[in-house]
Order: sequence, then C-alpha cells, then structure tokens
Amino acid sequence: MLEKYVKAARGLEKADLVLKNTTYLDVFTGTLKTGDIAVVGEKIVGTGKYQGKEEIDCSGLTVIPGYIDGHVHIESSQLSPEEFASLIVPRGTTTIIADPHEITNVCGMAGCEYIAKASQNVPLEVKLQLPSCVPATPFETSGAVLNGKDIENNINNDYIFGLGEFMNYPGLIYCDPDTLKKAEAAHSAGKVIDGHAPAISGYDLNGYLACGVTTDHECVTKEEIEEKISKGMYVHIRHGSSTQNLGNAKYITDKNMRRFILCTDDRHAADLKEKGHLDDALRRLVANGLNPVTAVICATLNAAECYNLKWRGGIAPFYLADLVAVDNLKNFNAKYVVKGGKLVAKNGKPLFDTSKRYLPANVLNTVHLKRPLTAKDFVLTLKGTKAKAMTIEPGGVVTGCEIVEVKSENGDVTVKDTDLLKLAVVERHKLTGNIGKGLFKGYGFKGGALGITIAHDSHNIILMGDDNEAMAKAANHLKEIGGGMVIVERTPCHSENSSCHSERSEEPPQYKIYSLTLDIGGLMSSRDAESLQRDSKALIERAYSMGVKRDYEAFMSLAFLSLAVIPKLKLTDAGLFDVEKFTFTDINV
Amino acid sequence: MLEKYVKAARGLEKADLVLKNTTYLDVFTGTLKTGDIAVVGEKIVGTGKYQGKEEIDCSGLTVIPGYIDGHVHIESSQLSPEEFASLIVPRGTTTIIADPHEITNVCGMAGCEYIAKASQNVPLEVKLQLPSCVPATPFETSGAVLNGKDIENNINNDYIFGLGEFMNYPGLIYCDPDTLKKAEAAHSAGKVIDGHAPAISGYDLNGYLACGVTTDHECVTKEEIEEKISKGMYVHIRHGSSTQNLGNAKYITDKNMRRFILCTDDRHAADLKEKGHLDDALRRLVANGLNPVTAVICATLNAAECYNLKWRGGIAPFYLADLVAVDNLKNFNAKYVVKGGKLVAKNGKPLFDTSKRYLPANVLNTVHLKRPLTAKDFVLTLKGTKAKAMTIEPGGVVTGCEIVEVKSENGDVTVKDTDLLKLAVVERHKLTGNIGKGLFKGYGFKGGALGITIAHDSHNIILMGDDNEAMAKAANHLKEIGGGMVIVERTPCHSENSSCHSERSEEPPQYKIYSLTLDIGGLMSSRDAESLQRDSKALIERAYSMGVKRDYEAFMSLAFLSLAVIPKLKLTDAGLFDVEKFTFTDINV
Repeated sequence: MLEKYVKAARGLEKADLVLKNTTYLDVFTGTLKTGDIAVVGEKIVGTGKYQGKEEIDCSGLTVIPGYIDGHVHIESSQLSPEEFASLIVPRGTTTIIADPHEITNVCGMAGCEYIAKASQNVPLEVKLQLPSCVPATPFETSGAVLNGKDIENNINNDYIFGLGEFMNYPGLIYCDPDTLKKAEAAHSAGKVIDGHAPAISGYDLNGYLACGVTTDHECVTKEEIEEKISKGMYVHIRHGSSTQNLGNAKYITDKNMRRFILCTDDRHAADLKEKGHLDDALRRLVANGLNPVTAVICATLNAAECYNLKWRGGIAPFYLADLVAVDNLKNFNAKYVVKGGKLVAKNGKPLFDTSKRYLPANVLNTVHLKRPLTAKDFVLTLKGTKAKAMTIEPGGVVTGCEIVEVKSENGDVTVKDTDLLKLAVVERHKLTGNIGKGLFKGYGFKGGALGITIAHDSHNIILMGDDNEAMAKAANHLKEIGGGMVIVERTPCHSENSSCHSERSEEPPQYKIYSLTLDIGGLMSSRDAESLQRDSKALIERAYSMGVKRDYEAFMSLAFLSLAVIPKLKLTDAGLFDVEKFTFTDINV
Repeated sequence: MLEKYVKAARGLEKADLVLKNTTYLDVFTGTLKTGDIAVVGEKIVGTGKYQGKEEIDCSGLTVIPGYIDGHVHIESSQLSPEEFASLIVPRGTTTIIADPHEITNVCGMAGCEYIAKASQNVPLEVKLQLPSCVPATPFETSGAVLNGKDIENNINNDYIFGLGEFMNYPGLIYCDPDTLKKAEAAHSAGKVIDGHAPAISGYDLNGYLACGVTTDHECVTKEEIEEKISKGMYVHIRHGSSTQNLGNAKYITDKNMRRFILCTDDRHAADLKEKGHLDDALRRLVANGLNPVTAVICATLNAAECYNLKWRGGIAPFYLADLVAVDNLKNFNAKYVVKGGKLVAKNGKPLFDTSKRYLPANVLNTVHLKRPLTAKDFVLTLKGTKAKAMTIEPGGVVTGCEIVEVKSENGDVTVKDTDLLKLAVVERHKLTGNIGKGLFKGYGFKGGALGITIAHDSHNIILMGDDNEAMAKAANHLKEIGGGMVIVERTPCHSENSSCHSERSEEPPQYKIYSLTLDIGGLMSSRDAESLQRDSKALIERAYSMGVKRDYEAFMSLAFLSLAVIPKLKLTDAGLFDVEKFTFTDINV
C-alpha cells in the first residue's frame, strides 16, 4: 500500500480521490491554507496540486478534519448505531468514543458486542469503552453485573478501546478492592480510562486521578477546570441535549488549549436531526466568541491526542482521510464528508445505506416479568396520612422530597383529584417480581398511566399514573412489545379508534394504549430515525395533552427517577431511596 | 498498587517520597505552582501538602518533569550506556529515544541487544529505535545488514520501541520494495518511525511522509520547519556537539508550539561533562530569548506526546515520577533528579553505581583483518601526475575534491614534503581484505599515521598518514586492541618511553604507538567516563602536536570521510566515491 501512497503523493499516479481547490485547516500550526487534498485508500497522501480518479470541487469550501466525539452514549438517541451514524456522519463526525453503558446494564457484554458489530455497518468509527459501572449502584436490580473479574476478562477484547466513564468514584477513593481491580485491569491492558468526576477536587481528586483516569466531562466552574487540567486531565466541552457545558470554552487559553476536547454525552435524535451534533457545538462555540480554529482543534487534534488516536485529527500525509468540507467556520454546514477516504455524505444526507441493520436476538425481548401484572400489584398501603412524595427540581434530574397529606380507601392511597400520582418501578430483568412504589407530586398527568423501559441506569420499567389498572396494563404492554414508551388512557367512550397514533391499540374499551417500541434492549429502536421520531413526537404530545406539565420532558423526565446517585429521593425496584443518607427510606413519615 | 497510590494521594498514608515546599511547573497550563509533590512507587500521586517516609526539601528550587531526549545516538559519546547515563541523568534527562545505529552497523542485532540490556543497569529509560538504515549505503562493507525481512523479524521485539531515523529517503520515495517493507513492518507493529529529511520539501516530502514518518531533526530554515510541522511532523530542536539547530526555537509560536521537541542526536562525552545535555540546551534556549516554560514543555510534555509516552512529561497524579529540581529556569542547574520515584542524582552527581557494566562478548573484538597488514598494502600507484585529493570544507562534514599534482617513486605516490597525506579505509568486518585508498590535502599531520575505527556509518578503519609502515602498524594495532584511536609516530630516537601517554607502546624503536581503546564495537569504551576522557584529550593533543590543523577535530573529522551520502568526494573500503554523481570514481584524472 505504501507504494501507492508514495506514487500518488509525488504526483506520479492519480490519487483515488482529490478534494480540489480547498481552503483547508492545518491544525498543527492553526492556519488556513489552500490547495488540493489527495487521498489514496483510507489515507491522505498529500496537499498541493493533485489529480484524482475521483475529484470533488471544494471551491469556496473549507476542509477540516472529521470531528471526534470524546464521549457519547449512542443509546440516548434511542437509535441503532446505524441510524445514529446516519444522523451524525453527515454533520461531520467521523469518530466517536462510545460508552454503551445503558445497553450493557440491560444486556451485559451482549450489549457491548451488539454496538461494536452494528457499528461496523456504517462509516463511523466507534471506539468502544467497556462500561466501568454496571450496575451504577447496588440499590436496584440490573440486567447485568460487570465486576472486577468481568472487566479483567473483557478489557482485552479487540473491540474494546478503553474503560468507560468511572462514575463510581467513591469505589476508587475508598479503595473498594473490586472497583480498584477494574482500573488495574485497564492499565494492564494499556487502555485509557474515562472519568466522570463532578465537583471532585483537592485530595479526593488526587486519589481519583492516582488511579489513572484521563478525562472529565462534568466540570463547569473555572476553578474546577483549572484544577483538573493542571492535574493532567483532559476536559470535555459537552453539548448534550440536557447536559451542556459549552461555557467551559471561556476558560481556554493559548497555554491550556490542547487539553480541551468536545463531546455530546447524551443527545436525543430530535436534536441530532434538527440542530446537529458536534457541528452544532462548533457553531455555538464560535457564536459565543471562541476562535473557530481553536474550536476545530478541540474537536479534532486534541481528541486524537487524548485518546492516542495516532494519525487522526489532522490534514497531512498518512493521516486518516476523515474530512469535512464546510461552507465556513461560522456555520459549519457540512457539504461533503469523507470517512476513511470515501465520500459518505453530501449536503447533510448520508450516502450510505442503513436499511440493513444488525439485530441479534440477545438484545431483543429484554422485558421480563415474573407474571402478568394486575391492578392489585399497584395498591399502595400507607400507615398514616402523611407520606413522602417525590418532586423534580428545576433542571430535571435532581429530585426533591415533599411530605404530603394523603387519603386512603380500601387500603390503597387515593390520588384521584390530587396533584399526586403513583410511581412504580417494576423490575424487568431477573424475574424477581420486585415492584418499588412511591408517590410523585406535580407532574400534571391525569387519566391513566405512563410507562417507559428507560430508567437510568438499570432500566427497569418506570410507571406513573392515577389508575392501578392502567399501570398494570402499561407494564404488561411494555413486556409485550419488548420495551419502549407507553400511554394507557382511561377513556369514557368504548371504541372509536380513529385518531389513535399508537402502533397498536387494545380492547377492553375503557383503556386505550398508545406506545412506541424500543425493541433493542428496551432502549433503542431498530427502525429508521425519521419514522421513529415522528411517532415519538406524537406520543410525547399525547402525554402533554393528558396534562404533563411542559416543565418536564413527558417521558424522559421519568427516566431519571431511579438514578440513586443523584439527590435527593429516588425510587428503584427495591424501594424508596434517600440519596443524601445513601440508604433506603420508608414512604411513611 | 492503586490502593497505595490512592491512600497516599488522599493523605491517609505517608507517601514513599515527598518533594517538599516546591515551586513546580504545571506543563498542562504552563504555570508555576507551589506545593509538595508526593510519590509512591514509581508514580506521582498528588500535589498539595504531604508527608513522606522520605522527604527532600526543595525550598527555593523549581521542580520540572525529567527531560526526554527525542533522538540520540549513545555511541557518539564513546561511552557505554551506563557511563552515558552517569553523565546525563544528573543533568535531568530521564528518558531518551536512542537509535543504536552505529553499533548495529558493526554488530547487527547484537548491538541493539547490548544497548538495551546495558541500559537496564541504570536509572535512565532508554526507548530503543531499531536502526532503519544498516548499512547506510551499499557502497561500503558493513558489519551487518538489516534488510526488510530483518526489520520485520525484529521490530516486534519487546525491547524495540520504534524504527530509527529513516535516512534512506530515496529508498522510500523511489519505492524500493525492500525499503518500503521496513516502513510497513513498523506500521504493522504499531510503532513510530523517526525521520531524517534534510531539505526535503514539496511533493518529495509528501512522498516521504506518506510512508508514515513522524519526526525530523534536520530542518533549519523557517520555510522548512513550517512546511514540516504543517504536514504533521514533529520538529526537533537539536543540541549536538557538531550539529546544532537551537535557532529553530525562533519559529515557535503559541499555535505550533506543541510540535517542537528537543534532542541531542550526537553529543561527545566532553560536552556532556563540561556543558551538559538537555539542561544545556534549555539554558541556551532561554538565554536566546525562548520563554523558559515553553522550553521545558518542548523537552517534556511535547516529546511524551510525540512518542506516545503516556503518563510522562508532566507533574500530576499517576504520572511517572521523573522529576528534576533545578535552581531556576534560567540556569537549569539540577540539584536533585528523581527517576521513577527514586532519587538518582544530587548536585550533579549520580547516586547510582555504574561500575558494574554489561559487556557481552559479541560486541567486543570487532576489528577483523584478513591478515596482518604491511607497508606494501599502502602503496598507491597512480597512472600520471594528476590525481583527485579530498579536502574538508568548513563545517567539517562536507568534503571537496581537488585536482593535485603528484610525484611517484618506485610505483608509490610520494607525500613527504607535500601538503598531501595518504588516506586509506581498511575493511574490518568481513575479512574481505578490501582497502580503499586515496589522498587528502591540507590536514597538516606529519610523521606517521592516525587511525580510528569510527567511520560513519559502517565503521571500517580510517587511516591517514605519510608513512606506509606507520599506516600498517596503526591498522594492526587497532585490531589488536579491539578498536579505538591510534597514533603511530615515526621517531628519530630509539627508545625513551617516558612521556608516552599510550595505554600501550611497542617496539621496533623507530615507531611509537599511542592509542585509546574503544573496545565496544570499536566505537565506545567500557571504561569510566572520567579516565577515558582524560586519555582521549591527551591523544587528541598529541595529534595536534604532530601538525593536525586546529580547524579539524583531530580524529573525529576522519570519521566522516567515508560517509558516502554527504558530498562531495568520499573514500570507502570499496574505493573513491563521487557523491554528486552517486558512483565510484577513479583517483587518476
């Protein structure tokens, strides 16, 4: 192959592909240059004047290296890796560091393998991090457990790039042997460990970093960023759907610039489709005043250096031909995207086929119930007239705990005609029959039940409703469709199915069921992005039409109510959990 | 081990070693900070306030990461790796990228193995590059040949870090299959390829770089440096004994800074001892106006990034505890040097023992002659009265060709009472009996012969003299001592050995022999640096006292007369070579 490279580089033979008449960014000196870019096979072989078997005229366009997303959970898009790629590659992203934490919590190593194999169908390089914290906490039942031994056994897999965000920082700094074993295994394998260290500083940060953690995508303050960079970390500038810290770019200086990289972490399909991926981050960063050359270097060369992705992130001979031709360094509209030497997207549309999707049986049908549930399963018997109810604080992830007055009838709390709703977490992995029950105040929903099989991080079924029967039906329906989102509506009328947007509706007549199937692990859909999104929107609008307050994301706000590492009150399949006291708590006051 | 790191990092247990009260350089943000630096095992675990089992008070000192020499031939010091370390580690260098090109030309892979094993005796990390160009040219007889297959067979050896400077750029850009195979082998092994690309630019540079070459230590002009960096190369700032390009630092900007690293390439023991190693480079760079923080970053973090030396080149948790405490960032006098967590030098003196040296038989006795040589072997019969004579141009490496008038007597050219000397290259590896012969004009030496077994790059015996008998004795003596440098002096007197500085002197009385043994491959000495240098100086002074002009380095100028890749006229064991025409040439005009 080198012979072909050399001959084309010297202009003796035609290159396979030439981007003609470009302005291109030399990330090594931070300057814009002009010339043709010659590509042979998957590599750039030279810049200058070149002829190609295939030529793309880039007059008026600026060519920059393909973007590298330093940290992303594909699952958050609810799309398969193939469909995810179809949205982000045309935006200019050619490499992602993906942590399949969610699907691995459901499916174990089969989840990792699925993401790895499915990614091979598309021109997006997916560097897969082995999730380090499965489950995220021991306070709920997950589909899988990866302990230290499991990490040791899998970290050397060819398809594993590194160890995913180490959220369990207490495990590291308090020296839990099994937790330390995970970090040791990554080092023995010579693999990178991603971090996740919100607000950790000083000696605790030293302790965390003494385990060899490389990155952080959680920091937001100037002090935090400066401390983390000065202690050797790379800091992500994050452009997620809910979690953002683009403001971190304010703290970039000439001296520390090389330690900043971009990521999206969690980004929904709607945002990917309507706003974009890292292109949108770049657009906003530049609009906010960041030098566009600096912004691009963070998204390319810096990430390549952080993750030891040699020969990537620059436009130079022997570098991987991952290239984006954009209109300018203000709008970052990608006209052409080249991945590994092939033109893979044009004018925002993928040129690759995503209709054939890898879909192994072991990531399907992941919703398991011990037996069909009935209304009785959602009876909530309280001891008195005061109980703890969960609320959601502004921001959407932190919850509150409010003491509320409750009435009961026939041994079951009454939520009708109150601003309370029943909340339930139904274990769906191990046939334990666990159902955690609680109360939620102020969601606004009325007339049935909402349910979803995305519930961070173990992804049991979360249900909310004012009707035991509806809640049971919601759970049973989610099992039937293999996971997803559901609305069970109690209706006065008996039939009239005309306006149903559901994939499926069911009798008996007093309940209508509307749902969206997320067949892959109950988290992602095997369908195409476009139709999925259309149906998803319709379902979400239906939830709002049933009273969900616009302060909340109709379904996704539910998905964080189980996450027993974020304050204050959470509900898991094992019961109500007080995060501040780090222990289970009684609903009765 | 992580548990120990974490507990010390958090201040719960004493660290093994603490540098107290330091000002230290945070290379990640380019700022000076204050605090203690805690070390456990070979790692830094934290900065802040710490207590240690061992503590070193660094009040008033500035602690910076240990220096990384990006490209060096240990052989140029004429010292064993152990003794080399004893000179450079106390200066603050803790890691070197070493290319054992010279000894491998003599001893083949045994030379590489020797350097690798000997280096294990000392607290200097030697990252060994497999020499890519053995021999450097096909126009002389070398001790070893490493062809493409040999590179394939050895590049994956554990002790091999990468592929050494690829001097044979024509082999790459003209696509010689065996040469390309070497580069392919390095890439298959995932190893770095060092470059050597003097004045190569444009499409030829693209061709060279399309083979995946990473660095260049030969560039000197602004244009060259800018082109090379913009095409993805790292550029060395070189501080060798004869070859220097510290001026490259002028072209460092905030934008391209991360692509500059430091190296010494070839540095003599005397310079190492009297002036220093990278500390001397830093001192001069700063004296010349380079920002000291930038200078240190080039010598540390940048080199670590260039060579993928993860967790090196910075002062932060989990980074290798390679540290230098200097008086200030102007003088760079190293007070303490810590390598891998151990204090290894203090006040410029090594704290490690170098008296036990690894000395395998297969790098000794490397001077082989088919038979003892006699005066007849140096008879030079010319066809007429005009001949080509070699000269040395200012600078010491490029040679000239001058047509000179010659007289002959008994079929042998007469050099007595002229400014000509006979030059001979005696093959010493393969018992070929080859002797290349020529003339040299203007060296000034009179009254015998000079000889040396360092003759780039194949290291045959180079002799210069005005006396056939003395030249024969010089060659025979070099064989006897196993290589080194020799002076054979024709004396009027017969005995009086009193003032001999030689290791050994010989009768018959009309010649005195003075020599210095370089027993390791005929290139390096197994002795201690100090006594070697004393004797070396004495021998060199004797050569000057016999008329060698002070324009030349008495012996080392001879060492470049065989190097058939540098213009214009060279002499190898196979004959006189015209580098510009790239072919052998007749001495007769």
